[in-house]
Amino acid sequence: MRIAVVGVGLVGGSIGLAAAERLDGAEVWGFDPAPGVLAAARERGAVARAAGSLAEAVEGASACFLCAPVGALPGLVAAALAAAGEDCVVTDVGSTKRLIAGATDDQRFVGGHPVAGAETSGVEHARGDLFEGAAWYLTPSERSSGLLYERLHRMLVAFRARPVAIDADTHDRLLATVSHLPHVIANVLVSQAARTLTQEGEALPRVGPSFRDTTRVAGASSAVWSDIYATNGEAIAAEVDETVRRLEGVAAALRSGDGASIVEWNERAREDRRRLLEADLAGDSVHELRITVPNRPGIVAQVALALGHGGVNIVDMALSPAPDMRSGAVRLWIAGDGDAERAKGLIEELGFPVSGRRA
Amino acid sequence: MRIAVVGVGLVGGSIGLAAAERLDGAEVWGFDPAPGVLAAARERGAVARAAGSLAEAVEGASACFLCAPVGALPGLVAAALAAAGEDCVVTDVGSTKRLIAGATDDQRFVGGHPVAGAETSGVEHARGDLFEGAAWYLTPSERSSGLLYERLHRMLVAFRARPVAIDADTHDRLLATVSHLPHVIANVLVSQAARTLTQEGEALPRVGPSFRDTTRVAGASSAVWSDIYATNGEAIAAEVDETVRRLEGVAAALRSGDGASIVEWNERAREDRRRLLEADLAGDSVHELRITVPNRPGIVAQVALALGHGGVNIVDMALSPAPDMRSGAVRLWIAGDGDAERAKGLIEELGFPVSGRRA
Repeated sequence: MRIAVVGVGLVGGSIGLAAAERLDGAEVWGFDPAPGVLAAARERGAVARAAGSLAEAVEGASACFLCAPVGALPGLVAAALAAAGEDCVVTDVGSTKRLIAGATDDQRFVGGHPVAGAETSGVEHARGDLFEGAAWYLTPSERSSGLLYERLHRMLVAFRARPVAIDADTHDRLLATVSHLPHVIANVLVSQAARTLTQEGEALPRVGPSFRDTTRVAGASSAVWSDIYATNGEAIAAEVDETVRRLEGVAAALRSGDGASIVEWNERAREDRRRLLEADLAGDSVHELRITVPNRPGIVAQVALALGHGGVNIVDMALSPAPDMRSGAVRLWIAGDGDAERAKGLIEELGFPVSGRRA
Repeated sequence: MRIAVVGVGLVGGSIGLAAAERLDGAEVWGFDPAPGVLAAARERGAVARAAGSLAEAVEGASACFLCAPVGALPGLVAAALAAAGEDCVVTDVGSTKRLIAGATDDQRFVGGHPVAGAETSGVEHARGDLFEGAAWYLTPSERSSGLLYERLHRMLVAFRARPVAIDADTHDRLLATVSHLPHVIANVLVSQAARTLTQEGEALPRVGPSFRDTTRVAGASSAVWSDIYATNGEAIAAEVDETVRRLEGVAAALRSGDGASIVEWNERAREDRRRLLEADLAGDSVHELRITVPNRPGIVAQVALALGHGGVNIVDMALSPAPDMRSGAVRLWIAGDGDAERAKGLIEELGFPVSGRRA
């Protein structure tokens, strides 16, 4: 069975590796227009054969994965469908799905979006296990072939992903909420702070951990994000409208000095965050541990090693160094009551003060 | 010289330790109404003597530090000034300064706010070096005694803090920008996401790292934050208004489909964040390294140890586990071009793919 991968970066390369490792008898043909990429991909084992063109990669394939920024996909889908045989499922990995859903009604096409691997790029970061446990949205149309949909679905299960069928509109709306909106907010916050601090001039405060966390994704790669904003602008704008509505409510409550409603709003946010994180971890309670440590090289390692040796995994971690970088607080998020308790004991044995709460 | 500390938690305890360690001949008398706190503080060396009342702690002191949530401070300031002698400087450590500035015009009072230690609480986390390199805002009034202001300033320098004189209004406006507003935004985002995801029901997506980062401070302690919202409501509301204005601009740009202005906006945010973080690190360029690793216990330790042994310190760190927790991306922020280059080499020697950019 031949698999075509067009665009062999992080995601395409990982698809190639997963197919080679986990699909019986699969042979991956890859195409990428960027110089040097195919050679690197062959070296990593992500493609078995480097094709000279998209058509060469796709012809005779049973499945074709198109891995490119959203804006390039309509053209690639058309080219792939033209080159592919009748028995080939063509899919993509774009971060938004409505544009591509509207671009074709060919029965061989099924839109897709694996929620994995956005933090790095390039085939050198590709891994055959990138999709293990990851949601992989599929957006079949009413015309999509059931036979081909089922083939694609089985492949994703072999990659150990969790395929989730969803219509393209809902997909784009959901992603607007949990991914695109936080990026917009981060951008707005940094620019607002930069302007305020420039105006005040006289006293530039050190930005605190809250500011750093909230704006960490500010200014993400324009190459990827301009396409996301362009193709999901309406859904993101609707989320922004909702944020505006909520912020106006908060501003009114702050001005009215209604302390009870502010406390209630704050407590609700705490509870909402806990529920969202728990859903993310399939039911395990997440605990947040706060540790005070000297910030010298090796201390974080010491803590991580102690937990590692104790079999406790760290879900998430944030260092908040004191401004002098010599000391600071480490926050760890640990899933499961038992693991959190164990982690606390291990850290106390190291002699660092630790306190915990449900995140 | 006697120093009084009223409220011996993280900040009060750290003041006590810093005074004992760094002020010649200082004897710290502490008072705290919560049971057990004073005994723990004495055990840690944060207070030399446990006073039975605020008045007992303050009487005969040369300096008095009031460490309590903002709402409790006006009462404490009045009580301390009543008990203190003519030659005692009275200060506080509240997170907002306008309320307390308006509460007294006694020449012995100077408002203060050390920007340190918000991530943990309790005297068990207290450290004598908590304030090293940290900004410590002082908000003297026109009536504040120059002699007493200078005494307080010298103490803070001995604590190795960086005292910054600022008027109370400006202080509260600046903190609204870099601290209070991010908390408001985080609260709004989690609640909005919780509602949207509940409505969509059919497909609860795993929240991504962008969502987790942006909402990390959501639902912070109501005991502390209700006072901050109550006493700085107007300044925070003004920042919220500005955010609303900016978000409305983004929504309009998204709806108009003006790709060029979206890219420009995104690039500006990237540049703004870099400048803010650099200011925070006194001029050093911050580099962001992205590493792909298996997420098993010990790997983060291995990376941190390698950098520690190489003398490279990690400014900030974020793990983004793949949903299965078996693999993931580690982002490290390293200050200085040389250190970042060195870190890259050390990580490559471990065999992990790493890529970098200026943060």
